[in-house]
Amino acid sequence: MTDRFEADYLIETATDPAHAAEVMAGEQSSGTFLVIPGETEELKARAAARIERFEEIDPLAVPSLPGAAADRGQGWRRARVTLSWPVANIGPSLPNLLATVAGNLFELKPFSGLRLLDIRVPRAFAAAQPGPRFGVAGTRRLSGVANGPLIGTIVKPSVGLSAVETADLVATLAGAGIDFIKDDELQADGPACPFEDRARAVMRVINDHADRTGKKVMYAFNLTGEVDEMRRRHDLIRDLGGTCVMASLNSLGLTGFLALSRHAELPIHAHRNGWGYLSRHPALGWSYIAWSRLWRLAGADHMHVNGIANKFCESDDSSIASARSQLEPMWDDLPVTAMPVFSSAQTVLQPPETFARLGSADLIYAAGGGLMGHPDGPAAGVASLRAAWEAAMEGIPLDTRATDSPALARALAQAGGQAPA
Amino acid sequence: MTDRFEADYLIETATDPAHAAEVMAGEQSSGTFLVIPGETEELKARAAARIERFEEIDPLAVPSLPGAAADRGQGWRRARVTLSWPVANIGPSLPNLLATVAGNLFELKPFSGLRLLDIRVPRAFAAAQPGPRFGVAGTRRLSGVANGPLIGTIVKPSVGLSAVETADLVATLAGAGIDFIKDDELQADGPACPFEDRARAVMRVINDHADRTGKKVMYAFNLTGEVDEMRRRHDLIRDLGGTCVMASLNSLGLTGFLALSRHAELPIHAHRNGWGYLSRHPALGWSYIAWSRLWRLAGADHMHVNGIANKFCESDDSSIASARSQLEPMWDDLPVTAMPVFSSAQTVLQPPETFARLGSADLIYAAGGGLMGHPDGPAAGVASLRAAWEAAMEGIPLDTRATDSPALARALAQAGGQAPA
Repeated sequence: MTDRFEADYLIETATDPAHAAEVMAGEQSSGTFLVIPGETEELKARAAARIERFEEIDPLAVPSLPGAAADRGQGWRRARVTLSWPVANIGPSLPNLLATVAGNLFELKPFSGLRLLDIRVPRAFAAAQPGPRFGVAGTRRLSGVANGPLIGTIVKPSVGLSAVETADLVATLAGAGIDFIKDDELQADGPACPFEDRARAVMRVINDHADRTGKKVMYAFNLTGEVDEMRRRHDLIRDLGGTCVMASLNSLGLTGFLALSRHAELPIHAHRNGWGYLSRHPALGWSYIAWSRLWRLAGADHMHVNGIANKFCESDDSSIASARSQLEPMWDDLPVTAMPVFSSAQTVLQPPETFARLGSADLIYAAGGGLMGHPDGPAAGVASLRAAWEAAMEGIPLDTRATDSPALARALAQAGGQAPA
Repeated sequence: MTDRFEADYLIETATDPAHAAEVMAGEQSSGTFLVIPGETEELKARAAARIERFEEIDPLAVPSLPGAAADRGQGWRRARVTLSWPVANIGPSLPNLLATVAGNLFELKPFSGLRLLDIRVPRAFAAAQPGPRFGVAGTRRLSGVANGPLIGTIVKPSVGLSAVETADLVATLAGAGIDFIKDDELQADGPACPFEDRARAVMRVINDHADRTGKKVMYAFNLTGEVDEMRRRHDLIRDLGGTCVMASLNSLGLTGFLALSRHAELPIHAHRNGWGYLSRHPALGWSYIAWSRLWRLAGADHMHVNGIANKFCESDDSSIASARSQLEPMWDDLPVTAMPVFSSAQTVLQPPETFARLGSADLIYAAGGGLMGHPDGPAAGVASLRAAWEAAMEGIPLDTRATDSPALARALAQAGGQAPA
C-alpha cells in the first residue's frame, strides 16, 4: 500500500453485502448510476476504488437505521470491508481524504448501517502533514512532569467567570500543585471574559508561580475562532510565556485546524465536543480510532478519550481502546502519536484500572469535582490523585496507599466507593 | 431574544424529560456535576442556559440509541425543548456557537436520543457573519439565467479524467446549452488532474463559448483544501474569469469555511458530502434546517438538498423541507438565503412535483445520467430538462408538453415512467 490509502468499514444491508461494497467503491471513485462514455477500463484502472478485504459477519434481525432498501427475507447482512484509493486521485490532502473516505456514503440506499472503523495512509502522505509536534515528550518537557500523568482540571463554572475570577481560581490551583488546567470549551472570547484579558490575568499568575517555585503550570487556552483570531491568540499566549492552546475540532474542521497547527509553536489540546453526534449510534458514523487519526495527522497533541466510569454513554472498553490508539505509533520513525486526555467524572477510584488496562501513564488525568471537591480543598485533591496514580503504577491497592496518604484516604471516603483491589 | 441565541432539540430519555432538559442546560453553560464554590446565583443569572420552551410528545417503547441510563418502566419519554444562551458567553462567533449548541450534549447519559432541530441567532449576531454574498440573485446575474432553474450537471466519471478530458466534456456540455457544471467532490488537486491545469483548460473552453454565444456557463471548481491553497485557487478562478467555486463543508469546518468566504469574491457552492453521518438516524445529530443555517450565516451561496426520488435514503418530505428552508429569509433586510441544489438521480420526471411542493424555481437542478444519458445526446438532455421545468412552471402535464418537445418525449420514454399528472 505505498501509493494507496485505505479505510475499513462496518456495513449492514438487506442486499448482498459484496455487491453493496461494490456500490460504495463505485460511488466514492469513478462511478455513477449510468455508464458514462468517458468511463473507460483504463480510467477505472487509474482511479477506481478497490475492495481490498471483505469479511461477512453475523446478520441482524432488524435494521439498525431506517430508510434503507427493503429486506429480502435474508435479514440484515453485515460485513467488514476495506476499500483503497490511489493517492493520485486527491494528492496528500487531509480535507480531500475526508471527502473520499467519509463522503456521500452514509446515505446510500442499500445501507441500513455504515460506520468507518479505521483509516491508513501511506507514509509519504503522513509525512506531508504537520503531525503532533509535541505529543507526550513535548508536553512532559514543557510541563516539567517527567513521570506519571499530568494531574489536571477544567476551569469550572464552564462559563460565567470574569478574567480576574478565572485567574484567582488558577492561583488556587497552582498553589495546590496542579500540572495542567484547561478552559472549558464553552469559554471563548465573549465580552464577559475576553480572551486577551483572561490570557494576561492567568499568565501573570502562572508566571509568578513559576518564578517562585520553578514549576510552570500548563494552561490550555481555548482559542477556538476564525483563523486570523486563532493565530493572533496563539501568538499572544506564546508571547506571554504560555505553553498550550486548545481548540474545538468540530468547530474548526480539518481545514481550520491545519491553518492553526501549521502556524502553532505550542502544543494543541484538541477538544472533541460534539463527538457524540458522530459516533453515538454503533452502526453509523465514526469510530474514534478512525476519526482521531485524521486529527493526529493534522497536528493534535492532546486528544480526549473520556475515561473509566465516565458520565457519558461511552463504555470503558471504548475509552481504553481510544486511549491506546493515541499512543500507538503509525511508524517507528514517524509515530504521529498524541497524549490521551482522560476526563469526565474522574476521581481517585479509576487510576488502578486505567493504568492496568492502558499499560501507560503517558496521559493527562483531568478531574473537575473530583479535585476541586476534595473535603480538604484542592491541594488535597491534587495530592490524592497523585497518590492514587502512584499506587496504580506501583501495583499497590489504593487502601494500602491511603494509610500513608491522608489526602487519598479522605478522597476514598468521600467517593464512597471501595477502592478496586 | 435580542441578546440570546436559541436552539431547538428533540430529546428522548428514560428519566423525567423536564429534568433531562435541565441537565442539558447545565452541561452547556455553568454547570458541572458538583456544586463549585464560584458558581453563585449572580453568575448563573449572567451565564446560564435557560429553558425557553418545553413540550412533551408521545413516548417510545424502545430506546432509539443504546448506552443511555436505564428504563424506569415509563417507556422512553420524548420532548421538544428550546434552550437559550446569552451571546455574551461567546461573542458573535460561529465556531463557538457550534460548541455551545452542539457540544458535549449528544453523549450525555440520560439521553437515548438527542437531535438538534433548529437554531436562531439575534440579528446582530447574523450581521457579524459574512452571509451569502450572491445567493439566488447573484447566481442568476452571473449565469445569465433570469427565470427557471439553472440546468446543471456534475462532471462524471467523478474522478479519473485528466484536465484536458474534463475540458473536452465541458465543451460538449457548453455546446449542449447547459447553465451550470460542477466538479465532483472527489475531484480536487491530485497529480492526475491538477487544479490549475483543470481550471485553465476548462475556463478556456467556457470563455471561448461565452465569446461566441454570449452565454457564460457557471462552473463550480472544487477548491477544497487548506486555507492558503483555497485562497490561491479562488484567486486563479477569479482571474481566469470563472464565476463559482465549490468546497466540501465537512472537510473545511466552520473555521475553514469562514477563512474562504471572508476572502471570496465569487459564489460558493457548498457541498455537504458526509451529511449522512450527521443526520441518518432520526433521533441523533442534526436536522438539515439547523445545520444549513450555520453554513448560510458563514457565507454558503448554494446548498445541496438531494431531491424528489433521490438515490439516497432521504425522504421527499425531508428534501423539500430542506430546500424551502434555504429560500426562507431570516430577516427581510438580512435574508441569509441560499440557492438550493437538487441532485441525485434527477430526471425529467421530478420537476412537476418539485415545483408544486417548493413553490419556486429558484434552484439549481443538477442531473448526471439524466442529462448525459439522453438517447440523443447531452443537448437533447438539456432541452428535455428545460422543457420539463417549463411545463412544471406553467402547470402543463409533461406528456402534453412532450407533444411539441421531441427531446422531452424521448427522455420520458427512456425514463420509462408515466409522467406525473
